[in-house]
Amino acid sequence: MSNAPTDIETLIALMARLPGLGPRSARRAVLHLIKKRGQLLNPLATAMQAVGDTARDCVNCGNIGTADRCPICLSEDRETGEICVVEDVADLWAMERSGMFKGRYHVLGGTLSALDAIGPEELHIPRLIDRLSRENVREVILALNATVDGQTTAHYIAEQVEGLGVSVTSLGQGVPIGGELDYLDDGTIGAALKARRAF
Amino acid sequence: MSNAPTDIETLIALMARLPGLGPRSARRAVLHLIKKRGQLLNPLATAMQAVGDTARDCVNCGNIGTADRCPICLSEDRETGEICVVEDVADLWAMERSGMFKGRYHVLGGTLSALDAIGPEELHIPRLIDRLSRENVREVILALNATVDGQTTAHYIAEQVEGLGVSVTSLGQGVPIGGELDYLDDGTIGAALKARRAF
Repeated sequence: MSNAPTDIETLIALMARLPGLGPRSARRAVLHLIKKRGQLLNPLATAMQAVGDTARDCVNCGNIGTADRCPICLSEDRETGEICVVEDVADLWAMERSGMFKGRYHVLGGTLSALDAIGPEELHIPRLIDRLSRENVREVILALNATVDGQTTAHYIAEQVEGLGVSVTSLGQGVPIGGELDYLDDGTIGAALKARRAF
Repeated sequence: MSNAPTDIETLIALMARLPGLGPRSARRAVLHLIKKRGQLLNPLATAMQAVGDTARDCVNCGNIGTADRCPICLSEDRETGEICVVEDVADLWAMERSGMFKGRYHVLGGTLSALDAIGPEELHIPRLIDRLSRENVREVILALNATVDGQTTAHYIAEQVEGLGVSVTSLGQGVPIGGELDYLDDGTIGAALKARRAF
């Protein structure tokens, strides 16, 4: 592939497996790393080692932390009555960046998919049902992606929760803040029209 | 920025400094790494450590290797009579991928730039001149980028080499293989017309 020494070849091959990087950008990134050995390559190696040694999934909600339970599950400041169900840790981080949600989370780790053999067990849905009574939850907020898979999963969870005396809500749909109608797809405009409210 | 533990925050901040990655794609890459701890994160940390420990610049040509002299400078199979001058190690790798050049290289590490205070010394041009007699070179091939900076540097090197009995050539310019005229810029078409040859 290139005439780089074997160690560098190995590093390029590994970097090329990161999302968003291909062989060409991995080469570029590795050359940049080697040029900035002191400021970037060595700290990065150390940081990866540290994360590799400490990162683990929260046994309660599936978030990533450095202990058996993540900081959000352990925090006394978070409300216990609300659980926000997300597909992925990235979605949890996105919710946290908004700073609007003060409850706890449940990370599914994906969506139901018959093709990929991902069922309720793989998504920790039984653990979610279990948490509802144990943590005295009154509301489950389904913050799943507005995709077919996401919505299928949302419907499945809503069915499971039905009859347990817990209210189930989902994120509002409509025009995003700053959005221009001309650039929105038909589905979003339809959803926004359905969700119209008194001005 | 996100609610990730400090180690992960550090890793994201460092990853975001790689070329081609921003804060958002760095977060995505780090989550991917954490999910694939065993297959990707740990090997990557080890590979970075290895490269950080061993990579060094060749004292002769400026290529990256794992010893004082790079494999190309040490190789007995490479012709000593030709030196290909490139801006960057990435360009050297690109030349090597073509598999067409059997001589040795000289990596400048950039181009002349009055604004950035990059003079001939910073680009190891005196070392190149020194190599010409020491390695008994008969041809210097200027494989610099076809940009203003690259061509200014090429002219400077050609001037320095003049009178030393070494022929100076540069890469041919014209229509790239597979190129369509309609998509080429005017400069390239002009250069191709100037470089026309008997069919």
